[in-house]
Amino acid sequence: MTTSGMRDYLDGPYKAARDVVRAGLAADAELFDLAVTLPREDYRDRVLGLLERITAEGHPARGFPKEYGGGGDLGGFIAGFEMLAFGDLSLMVKAGVQFGLFAGAILHLGTERHHEEYLADAISGRLLGCFAMTETGHGSNVQALGTTATYDASTGEFVVHTPNPAARKDYIGNAARHGRMAAVFAQLVVGGESHGVHCLLVPIRSADGSPLPGVTLSDCGPKLGLNGVDNGRIVFDQVRVPREALLDRYAQVDAEGNYASEIENPDRRFFTMLGTLVQGRVSVGGAAINASKVALTIAIRYGARRRQFGAPGSAEEASLLDYRMHQRRLLPLLARTYALHFAQAELVDEFVRIFDRNNDKQPASGRVVEGEPASGRVEGQPGSGPVVEGEHDRRALEAQAAGTKAVGTWHATETIQACREACGGAGYLAENRLATLKADTDVFTTFEGDNTVLLQLVAKGLLTDYRESFGKLDPLGTARFIAAQAVEIAVEKASLRPLVERLRDAVPNRSDTADPDAGLRDDAYHSGMVRFREEHMLSGVARRLKAGIDAGDEPFDVFNRCQDHVIAAGRAHVDRVVLEAFQTAVQSAPEEIREQLKDIYDLHALATIESERAWYLEHGRLSPGRSKAITALVNELCAAVRPVAVDLVDAFGVPGAAVDVPMVVPSQHE
Amino acid sequence: MTTSGMRDYLDGPYKAARDVVRAGLAADAELFDLAVTLPREDYRDRVLGLLERITAEGHPARGFPKEYGGGGDLGGFIAGFEMLAFGDLSLMVKAGVQFGLFAGAILHLGTERHHEEYLADAISGRLLGCFAMTETGHGSNVQALGTTATYDASTGEFVVHTPNPAARKDYIGNAARHGRMAAVFAQLVVGGESHGVHCLLVPIRSADGSPLPGVTLSDCGPKLGLNGVDNGRIVFDQVRVPREALLDRYAQVDAEGNYASEIENPDRRFFTMLGTLVQGRVSVGGAAINASKVALTIAIRYGARRRQFGAPGSAEEASLLDYRMHQRRLLPLLARTYALHFAQAELVDEFVRIFDRNNDKQPASGRVVEGEPASGRVEGQPGSGPVVEGEHDRRALEAQAAGTKAVGTWHATETIQACREACGGAGYLAENRLATLKADTDVFTTFEGDNTVLLQLVAKGLLTDYRESFGKLDPLGTARFIAAQAVEIAVEKASLRPLVERLRDAVPNRSDTADPDAGLRDDAYHSGMVRFREEHMLSGVARRLKAGIDAGDEPFDVFNRCQDHVIAAGRAHVDRVVLEAFQTAVQSAPEEIREQLKDIYDLHALATIESERAWYLEHGRLSPGRSKAITALVNELCAAVRPVAVDLVDAFGVPGAAVDVPMVVPSQHE
Repeated sequence: MTTSGMRDYLDGPYKAARDVVRAGLAADAELFDLAVTLPREDYRDRVLGLLERITAEGHPARGFPKEYGGGGDLGGFIAGFEMLAFGDLSLMVKAGVQFGLFAGAILHLGTERHHEEYLADAISGRLLGCFAMTETGHGSNVQALGTTATYDASTGEFVVHTPNPAARKDYIGNAARHGRMAAVFAQLVVGGESHGVHCLLVPIRSADGSPLPGVTLSDCGPKLGLNGVDNGRIVFDQVRVPREALLDRYAQVDAEGNYASEIENPDRRFFTMLGTLVQGRVSVGGAAINASKVALTIAIRYGARRRQFGAPGSAEEASLLDYRMHQRRLLPLLARTYALHFAQAELVDEFVRIFDRNNDKQPASGRVVEGEPASGRVEGQPGSGPVVEGEHDRRALEAQAAGTKAVGTWHATETIQACREACGGAGYLAENRLATLKADTDVFTTFEGDNTVLLQLVAKGLLTDYRESFGKLDPLGTARFIAAQAVEIAVEKASLRPLVERLRDAVPNRSDTADPDAGLRDDAYHSGMVRFREEHMLSGVARRLKAGIDAGDEPFDVFNRCQDHVIAAGRAHVDRVVLEAFQTAVQSAPEEIREQLKDIYDLHALATIESERAWYLEHGRLSPGRSKAITALVNELCAAVRPVAVDLVDAFGVPGAAVDVPMVVPSQHE
Repeated sequence: MTTSGMRDYLDGPYKAARDVVRAGLAADAELFDLAVTLPREDYRDRVLGLLERITAEGHPARGFPKEYGGGGDLGGFIAGFEMLAFGDLSLMVKAGVQFGLFAGAILHLGTERHHEEYLADAISGRLLGCFAMTETGHGSNVQALGTTATYDASTGEFVVHTPNPAARKDYIGNAARHGRMAAVFAQLVVGGESHGVHCLLVPIRSADGSPLPGVTLSDCGPKLGLNGVDNGRIVFDQVRVPREALLDRYAQVDAEGNYASEIENPDRRFFTMLGTLVQGRVSVGGAAINASKVALTIAIRYGARRRQFGAPGSAEEASLLDYRMHQRRLLPLLARTYALHFAQAELVDEFVRIFDRNNDKQPASGRVVEGEPASGRVEGQPGSGPVVEGEHDRRALEAQAAGTKAVGTWHATETIQACREACGGAGYLAENRLATLKADTDVFTTFEGDNTVLLQLVAKGLLTDYRESFGKLDPLGTARFIAAQAVEIAVEKASLRPLVERLRDAVPNRSDTADPDAGLRDDAYHSGMVRFREEHMLSGVARRLKAGIDAGDEPFDVFNRCQDHVIAAGRAHVDRVVLEAFQTAVQSAPEEIREQLKDIYDLHALATIESERAWYLEHGRLSPGRSKAITALVNELCAAVRPVAVDLVDAFGVPGAAVDVPMVVPSQHE
């Protein structure tokens, strides 16, 4: 393996965009000390300065249409954004708020007049904005937001109002200090009728920075991390904005107060609007994976360098990374980081495919395809009438983004924690960066959708698919399907499969053959295992839900009883998708790195199965003997990967400025 | 159950000492904002001010002998110290450095002249000191420290020196700003011969705060948390101290340069000296458990108050804590916090018993019992000659302290993380305290002994016991023992037990009997399970180690191959001790709270078995059916505990000032 070959393969098609951000970071070494040394207000202003610099370098514009000063390169934009996670994460998040969320809302939810009026300013950073969705009393349940936007036909204005303390906009980036305008999500009330949540552009600050009349702004104060982002709160007291403030791509209100939308069903309209904002989740997942790379680069280099204890009688202590426990703590996480990298690359490809395709057909204004009949592919969805083209693909993309975001951000939390602990007291010092990484990334599991809620969303989507394919089976097929399920259950209950499996699983005597674990390193074996788990869990959840409903129980109680099962099923799905993305990446890899990548892949695959071995044992899919053999093989693969562990983190290409910390390179700091 | 009854039971014999600290905290509400708003130097000085205040209130003195101004109440001292974890953790840690470590080293390693000269000043805070053990290049491996203290007989002085950058004292509390003297651990060299690590008192700062000649002090800079503690670095350049600076309880150097120690074996001497410092580990474990209580109080109150989504068609959203997943995230951690509370209380009792007994027999000077022959109870220990009385009990105490510290601090990290995530974005704001708790406690898993190293120590101690009891068996007994082991292995290999177990485990049809899970809630069942696991893992490790050595492999490699197994065995031991401490506590509880405590106990016991169910399945100790039944019962117990969850956290008695944060009690903050 060559490190540069591996790095090129990881960088993929957006290498150029990534390298631009790398170069910027390398020039910004001082940045890494700001987070912990500057007073908060100064830090926030410094981050704003950096935002202006990357804007001037043209990075954010890359992702926007050319007619508004953009570069029209969505994939390069996402890749570059992810790379910002190698640097100061407040900058990454502030850029995400400004370009991904605020400008993104204008682009995706607005129409030509909004694009013409605001987009160039938003992309250039001349107009700093907020994305005012979350409220103090309403986080995940966006449909229940309390803020109202009531149309006053007598003046042709919307009146934006916060009716109670729980409806206060909260945790809003750019709100405490820099934002001049907010994309406000509110219940749209027209002619006394509520049409659900819509988005409007509401100015909140004058040019001199003071709040506009009727707008009360406050500061969320210090946070665990990301203190370079000015999160704040917004309360509206009957604030009037013109009718044109409504971002009206999916619903319009005319001067007389007539509400119209091509999407009749309010739920569907709501989810369609939200769906256009999927880019945020795609980006956060990628950023989390990249933050994990930074932590692993630091911890693995440190583990290779640092010595402790050692063989009795030996003068030299052993490297931390030579200890099995240290390998166990870090190397499966390294393998999973590779896996998630490839899963994220697949997600970005799909995102670009879908959003670029739409852009081709619906440039700039991106309207719904009017008059198109409901497609057979969205059977079972509520409502009717024209749909956004590619709705089914979009829903699939949303689920994939939600799942990758949830798993990627939890991975970051776990990985950075493990890295901190693996570096002991040195890892606790701010100068070694793990502390800041840990504090800054901790909220990733919450923002852009709470992870548990997201995995629920993934599972619900799959259960709907499931119901659809079920629905399409003819009666005989249905009967067969049920019978197959019943056999499955019967096999488990009778404990027949454990015996069958045990015989089949008999692991050959390890000293007898050259490669006794060959079967365990077989891609097909891994796929079979993760697919079995996904399908079994989904069908199990479906069965439990159906049984509860059939028994006449309250739907909420039925669901709640299965909630842990539903979320585990969502996770099982994502695990399968991630594993198969890694398989594909190994198969497509250049010869010179394929073998090495296969080792890491095997480590990931077997560690994944190992971590769920209780479930496999419970479901007769692993014999006790094979389960233990997998643990032994994970240990062996850790040892096999250890000699190239430093090369494997070097291949991430994190700039030295971000990882050459004192505990790793003491000479540079003495 | 009454909350006050539960609280009294939890407070136990040291209720008065706990209430003193509670009252102090309640008076100090402003304290909680200092950590995130004050510049670091000011924060450090404020924490010093608080240290002086609690000193004036007489809290730290409680734990020291009366002749030096103390109160002679070791148990109350530890209990009070643990309670400091309800407040600002920098204060807790700074108090630990000053009174537990610095004054503790003088008390336990010094002799009468040191006590007379320094102890009253150390206890009163007039003499602020450091505990200078850890070096940049040597954390866990204290025996390999590089700092030297070389006796110069010509002047009657020790020369303290830092021979290379790796020997720099690092992360030392009180070193950056306030410490005037340091208890320095160094290789003692007398007459050209090294006698291993000993401790000396070395002045480092003059009264005006400037470093003394030959002493270079620097600041570790900002940290993830605990920024109210002035951690720093110390480098010695041939610093001379008088011969009397040596803390000479266990080894003496006379004016002519003759070294003498009642403990001939250097390893044993070293571990005896370290062992006297066990109080630090006892205290940190207790503090971590109490920090978990604060986080759970906040998160569970928030979860009971906060509503999100809900039954379709219902106007009212459901409480977060009514969701199964939310219960799953928090309530098993609540149950484990109760378990650890009782395990910690047991540990403190044992600590008081051993150290108070020693104090009775060896007041103040606490000398070794000279001339006493080696006790049969320390058979198998290296070396010979007189031993410290109760050495065996002390080693057992050290292991128990190490295990409780490791498990308690990891528990705190996990619990506070879960609480933060369960409170979403609000949990990320400093005003709601979870952020600070998380950042401050994160290093607990590292300091006072890295947790993985500590669990290894626990397991090694047990393996030694194991070898001892093995050694005492007569030949026939040995043969039987081995045969029993062999049968055990054979049973597993033949997969006989899974079948036997499955038949025995057949869970009755749940609708048939009044209490179908009765067997699963049986204390004896739980004990049997955790004992089986502990014993099986220890014997398995012993077998693997023996096999490796018998095969002639390098001992280091043999050990390293088993390291994950060794650490898991240590963990299994601690899990068993904790579970049984909880059992005892339930049995001894007053009638009025016993039933409630039993529910929490059952939740803890079954969640513990559930978390290791893969292992039990692999070892034929759980059938798949029973394994699933346990998961189902954990869910049911979560639901059963949910209605009293708020009462159960209220019983911790965390003062309102520490937990009435804006997200929990918004009205107080508007």
